[in-house]
Amino acid sequence: MSDPGLTDAGRRKRGGGRAAMMGRSAGVIDQMPWRIPVNPDRPTEPLDGDGVARIHQTAMRILREIGIEILNPEAVAILKQAGCLVSGTNVRFDEDFIMEMLGDAPAEFTMTPRNPAREVVIGGRHMVFVNVSSPPNSWDIERGKRSGDFETFKDFMKLTQYFNCIHIAGGYPVEPIDIHPSVRHLDCLYEKLILTDKVCHAYSLGAERVEDVMEMVRIAAGLSHAEFDARPRMYTNINSVSPLKHDYPMLDGAMRLARRGQPVVVTPFTLAGAMAPVTMSGAVALSLAEALSAVALLQYINPGCPVAIGTFTSNVDMKSGAPAFGTPEYMRATQMTGQMVRSYGVPMRASGVCASNIPDGQAMWETSNSLWSAVQSGTNIVYHAAGWLEGGLIASTEKFVMDCEVLQMIQRYFEQATFATGEEDLAFDAIKEVGAGGHFFGCAHTQARYQEAFYQPIASDWRNYEAWAADGGIWTSERANRIAKQILAEFEPPEIDHNAREELNRFVARRKQEGGAPTDF
Amino acid sequence: MSDPGLTDAGRRKRGGGRAAMMGRSAGVIDQMPWRIPVNPDRPTEPLDGDGVARIHQTAMRILREIGIEILNPEAVAILKQAGCLVSGTNVRFDEDFIMEMLGDAPAEFTMTPRNPAREVVIGGRHMVFVNVSSPPNSWDIERGKRSGDFETFKDFMKLTQYFNCIHIAGGYPVEPIDIHPSVRHLDCLYEKLILTDKVCHAYSLGAERVEDVMEMVRIAAGLSHAEFDARPRMYTNINSVSPLKHDYPMLDGAMRLARRGQPVVVTPFTLAGAMAPVTMSGAVALSLAEALSAVALLQYINPGCPVAIGTFTSNVDMKSGAPAFGTPEYMRATQMTGQMVRSYGVPMRASGVCASNIPDGQAMWETSNSLWSAVQSGTNIVYHAAGWLEGGLIASTEKFVMDCEVLQMIQRYFEQATFATGEEDLAFDAIKEVGAGGHFFGCAHTQARYQEAFYQPIASDWRNYEAWAADGGIWTSERANRIAKQILAEFEPPEIDHNAREELNRFVARRKQEGGAPTDF
Repeated sequence: MSDPGLTDAGRRKRGGGRAAMMGRSAGVIDQMPWRIPVNPDRPTEPLDGDGVARIHQTAMRILREIGIEILNPEAVAILKQAGCLVSGTNVRFDEDFIMEMLGDAPAEFTMTPRNPAREVVIGGRHMVFVNVSSPPNSWDIERGKRSGDFETFKDFMKLTQYFNCIHIAGGYPVEPIDIHPSVRHLDCLYEKLILTDKVCHAYSLGAERVEDVMEMVRIAAGLSHAEFDARPRMYTNINSVSPLKHDYPMLDGAMRLARRGQPVVVTPFTLAGAMAPVTMSGAVALSLAEALSAVALLQYINPGCPVAIGTFTSNVDMKSGAPAFGTPEYMRATQMTGQMVRSYGVPMRASGVCASNIPDGQAMWETSNSLWSAVQSGTNIVYHAAGWLEGGLIASTEKFVMDCEVLQMIQRYFEQATFATGEEDLAFDAIKEVGAGGHFFGCAHTQARYQEAFYQPIASDWRNYEAWAADGGIWTSERANRIAKQILAEFEPPEIDHNAREELNRFVARRKQEGGAPTDF
Repeated sequence: MSDPGLTDAGRRKRGGGRAAMMGRSAGVIDQMPWRIPVNPDRPTEPLDGDGVARIHQTAMRILREIGIEILNPEAVAILKQAGCLVSGTNVRFDEDFIMEMLGDAPAEFTMTPRNPAREVVIGGRHMVFVNVSSPPNSWDIERGKRSGDFETFKDFMKLTQYFNCIHIAGGYPVEPIDIHPSVRHLDCLYEKLILTDKVCHAYSLGAERVEDVMEMVRIAAGLSHAEFDARPRMYTNINSVSPLKHDYPMLDGAMRLARRGQPVVVTPFTLAGAMAPVTMSGAVALSLAEALSAVALLQYINPGCPVAIGTFTSNVDMKSGAPAFGTPEYMRATQMTGQMVRSYGVPMRASGVCASNIPDGQAMWETSNSLWSAVQSGTNIVYHAAGWLEGGLIASTEKFVMDCEVLQMIQRYFEQATFATGEEDLAFDAIKEVGAGGHFFGCAHTQARYQEAFYQPIASDWRNYEAWAADGGIWTSERANRIAKQILAEFEPPEIDHNAREELNRFVARRKQEGGAPTDF
């Protein structure tokens, strides 16, 4: 075996049974089986009760005394009807309305994609991971940085499907600029629905796009319209235009999904010092005000519809104005938002992020900081959990593999076995049997457990320097490059019902003939 | 400015006042000022009350029913006198004795080196960082892996002194094999005491070495013997020989320091699956039993002498037997040990560790896991916090710089400013002033704060890809290499009293003439 991350027949059985049941993702590497991780830790809470109250009161003052610009006339009319104070596009919300609407929002919901075994739970102590979404560019060791294209889009969709620790096929991992924007969503969603069987995301970028995606998800799963509407099958994520603004298409898409009971994640993008106050609790308060205004709108439209609040509060580098990610300030903003969102009783979204341009040491300390702060904040859905570089401007296959190692370690970290204190875990008898100066490897207690006892890495090389050097002295990014290429070379798409696929083909052909979506918004 | 980590005159003033006061460490990079970090977070506690009780009971059963091999006759005689059940080298301890001895141990102590401004507090919520200690080899980008030598030892001592986030000059960063073992401790401690003014460590590797180091620390600080004995000035760290054994020289050194009121850190090295049970709580229980036996001995010898309990519980790779570091199991073992050590009321030691052979992505996710688990476990003293590679077999200058970035981020993460919720932090007025669609950079609230608002990196490059690429496209490890070289080129040692230095010279010359320490143990 020349590469430590690659197939070891002796270990493959570990995930084989479940992997075989779930599709064809065994082989290449010995990854963990599919599971929905459950976070057993008490969250890290930097705020005391008074701090929580003060951030809440500030968000409420923002909503009541300053208001939010709502650039969607339909939404404004609805909010006016709901009793909000409207002045042109400015809408002011009082606390009672916000809290009443929040009271309708579910604390937890499930999303069921075309393969029901890939159902995900959003909320409570559950935590799921989403691939990198929306970079315009890709990067890999051989080709460097280049604009996104459709082949690269498909490569990332294959990685998204392959890795069991990626639970949701989020936005476009790269923007495929070789596909005309009018039909891009049709081609992308088609490939996403063929190459993966996981929960899908729709961009809220115009009515036609949103409606097309809902229809395609429905068709791929072989559902009637009523069946589609009966429970969450997909979702959208909308960003406010911070500070204090929601634009037309985002709200339009959100309202369309909410009316059909499909989840909406509301994620303001508030960089402290730029679109938000330079102080972190102020940036969090602004972000929450923006998020709560959209949540209230959606709950008024369809009480009880599934929503989540996202955080994307980081800071800019005050020297250059460049966004910074995975900083201490980012971690605290994520933890504070987690406290606030728990107090509002809805699921929480955070991200795996970094500012680094390449998958190096900086990339991994920044990404580790962001992913672990997601754990610490009780986050339920982690966007960009694998593959992100350059503040979201680059998706990298190497980084995707490296991040999946961190995600698997988080999943293992959550397992009770790592901190269980049953009689057999405490191992008194084994300690007595082995005695002073002995070695535990040979004892029965170890032999009965060693195959499952510890986390097994996929991209890490744990050999000593000499063995590693004799095998070429390959750094992590290069190992990840090789693993990604082998996964892509051996990828087999998941099964899909023949009739569903045919109908999907017909739908895409018809919509393309109709011209797709307008591109002038 | 060609390298983002290097001097920026406009920012240097930030740490200048304090840095100037503390010595000559300004310049090269704009690092944080010296401080003793205080961890405001509630620890992450995987164990419930029952789990804590079960691990404690198991440790007590080990001490009572199996006992510890004590390979130091003096220690055995003392423990026999204390009422322990002795059979040859096997010593059994009962719970009452252990708990009574623990009751004497201080929860917190300070160590004062020759520069009193470098005093460190060990215990409570304080957290201090120690350089990498004891690798036989070094690695850097130009020269690869090579055996430790004295010049490299000195380079790491300079980095240890330079970085304000390194609080203690621990063991030898590399073993200088070009110095004969009989006089190595004399040359090393001399250089350590000249090149740094921080708290020093003595290896417990024979009576002469320990006594020489205590004498040199005393001389360098210009203290009388009574003044030296009056309070902690330095410390030692001892490892048990797991499972269930303490060797002669470690206990000898520990007893010598304890008698003079100098701190002893007791750190069993328990790799689950090798020297400890394959189950993590069992490995923790074994480790605690070993540590508590030494702590009890030292408290019996000198009640109230400062001690700390260290954790070095990780796991082996069950495929190869190689030690793994920074794994999920490592994190949980550290957190569990933190809970137990807090319940025993003594300070806690953990480490910054990784298995990677080079300062790449894997190195940083493993090191991040270990350093943040130290934060989560309420650790007070973090060994190997900067510079460690290959499971402790390599010290790397690049890794030293990269780790200091993570340590500085931890220090910033601890600052109240990152989660404060005062009126000015919540920034309602600034949000109102900027309004919808505005930008916060220009407002007075930002302008008054932007210079100190956010963490400023030392080795990270936050520029966009194009700016980074145009400047050479330098990866983190290469940037760290350049920074380390510039620090070493510009290093100026801290001041030392002329008379103290002269006496130190005479002491070393005399001890060398006497032949130094025996080398046959």
